Amino acid sequence: MRVEIWSDINCPWCYIGKARFEKALERFPHREDVEIVHRSFELDPTAPAEARPVVPLIAAKYGIGLDRAEAAEQGIAASARDEGLTYRTEGRDAANSFDMHRLLHFAEEHGRRAQLLDVLYRANFADERSAFAPGRLLELAVEAGLDAGAAAHVLADRTAYADAVREDEATASAMGATGVPFFVFDRRLGVSGAQPPATFTAALEQAWDSRVPVPLLTGADTTAESCGPDGCALP
Amino acid sequence: MRVEIWSDINCPWCYIGKARFEKALERFPHREDVEIVHRSFELDPTAPAEARPVVPLIAAKYGIGLDRAEAAEQGIAASARDEGLTYRTEGRDAANSFDMHRLLHFAEEHGRRAQLLDVLYRANFADERSAFAPGRLLELAVEAGLDAGAAAHVLADRTAYADAVREDEATASAMGATGVPFFVFDRRLGVSGAQPPATFTAALEQAWDSRVPVPLLTGADTTAESCGPDGCALP
Repeated sequence: MRVEIWSDINCPWCYIGKARFEKALERFPHREDVEIVHRSFELDPTAPAEARPVVPLIAAKYGIGLDRAEAAEQGIAASARDEGLTYRTEGRDAANSFDMHRLLHFAEEHGRRAQLLDVLYRANFADERSAFAPGRLLELAVEAGLDAGAAAHVLADRTAYADAVREDEATASAMGATGVPFFVFDRRLGVSGAQPPATFTAALEQAWDSRVPVPLLTGADTTAESCGPDGCALP
Repeated sequence: MRVEIWSDINCPWCYIGKARFEKALERFPHREDVEIVHRSFELDPTAPAEARPVVPLIAAKYGIGLDRAEAAEQGIAASARDEGLTYRTEGRDAANSFDMHRLLHFAEEHGRRAQLLDVLYRANFADERSAFAPGRLLELAVEAGLDAGAAAHVLADRTAYADAVREDEATASAMGATGVPFFVFDRRLGVSGAQPPATFTAALEQAWDSRVPVPLLTGADTTAESCGPDGCALP
C-alpha cells in the first residue's frame, strides 16, 4: 500500500499531522508493507523570498491584533508539544518555500527526501536560527546527507526540479486537495488535515481491507497471451 | 501516476508484454510523470531448483508431442522478435525463480530493480548460457550493478526478501491477477496479458484522465486543522 502526503514546510498543521499519522502507522500491523511518498504543496507560491516574522503575518492575514495572533501561534505550539514536537514561538519567520520543494525532489532521487523533510521541519519550527537565512538551506541539505556541491547546483538553477514540484501540485489539485496536510491512500481514499491518530488508523485499515480486484480496462483483448499456474498461452 | 507490473522471469509473455507496454509508454505525452514499479509473481513456486529443458516441459504440461511444443516455442519466439527482442529457441531451460525474485527486491533497495530485471530476461530468453547455471545469478547481479558480496549474502540466506516476494504475490492475488504479465494503473485500473501497445496506450490515457478527486474517509473530522491558500486554522 502507498500513502502519499502533500505538505508545505510553512504549514504547522503539516508538521503536527505528520507526527499524528506516524503514531497511527507505528501501531499498524502491516506497517512494513506501507510505502510513504512525500509530495510538494506550496501554500503561497507568491510569497517573497525574504523571511518575515510569522506573528505579524498572521495578524495581517486575518485582520486581527498582534496579541490575538500571538495567542494563535501559542495554541498551535501547544498542539505540536502534545505530539512531542519542539515548537519555537519566539521570532519564527516564513518565506517562499519553492527552493525547499525543489531540493526535496532532488533529495528524493538520492533516497533522502524523508530525511530532508524532517530537517526542514525542525529548522523551521524548532531551531533558533531561521530556516530562510542566506546559505541556511545548503547547510540543511548537507545535514540531510546530500552532497554539498550537487545541492548548491540545484539551488542555483531555479529551473531544476521546478516541473516536479508543479506536477505534485497539479496532482494534489486533481485529487481534490485544497489545503495541506493531505493524505492519499493508494489513490483511492483521502484524508484532509491534521486528524487525530485514530482517524489515520481507520484510513489505513479501510485502505488495506479494500485492496480489492481492480477493474480491467474495458475493450482490452480478453484472450491476450499470458502465463499462469497452468502454463503459458501457446501460439 | 504509478504503473505496477507483476511478472515472472520464466514467463515469455511478460518479456514480450513489457516491450509492448514500453512502446506505449515511449509515446505517452506524460511519460515523465509515470513511475514504473516491478513486482514479483512466481508462475510455479513448487518448481525444482534444477533447470530443465523448456520444450519437453511444455510437451508434458499440455500433453502434446515434442514437435508441437517446439512449434509453440517457435511461435512465441516470433512474437518476441516482432517486438525487437532476441529469443533463443534452442536449449532454453526453466527452474524455480524464487531466488531471482528475492534478488530483485534486494536490487530495488539499491535502485537497480529495472536493470536487474532486464539482465534476467536477457539471460533467460536471449543468452546461450542458462540463467539457472550454478553461480550464474551472482554474475548477473554484478552485471546489473549490485555489490557482489552483498548479493552473495542475499542469495545464501533463503529468508532474505522472502516476505517481500510473498507480499507482492498476495497483493497480485488481492488485485485479481491470476496470471502474468499483470499491469495495474494507480491501483484503479488493470490490464492482463501481453496486450498490443494500443491497449496500453488506452489504459495510460484512461488512468491519466481519471485522476479525479479521491473520496475522503467517511467519519473523519471535516474541521480538522489544516493550512490552505487563505491561511492556517487558528486555535
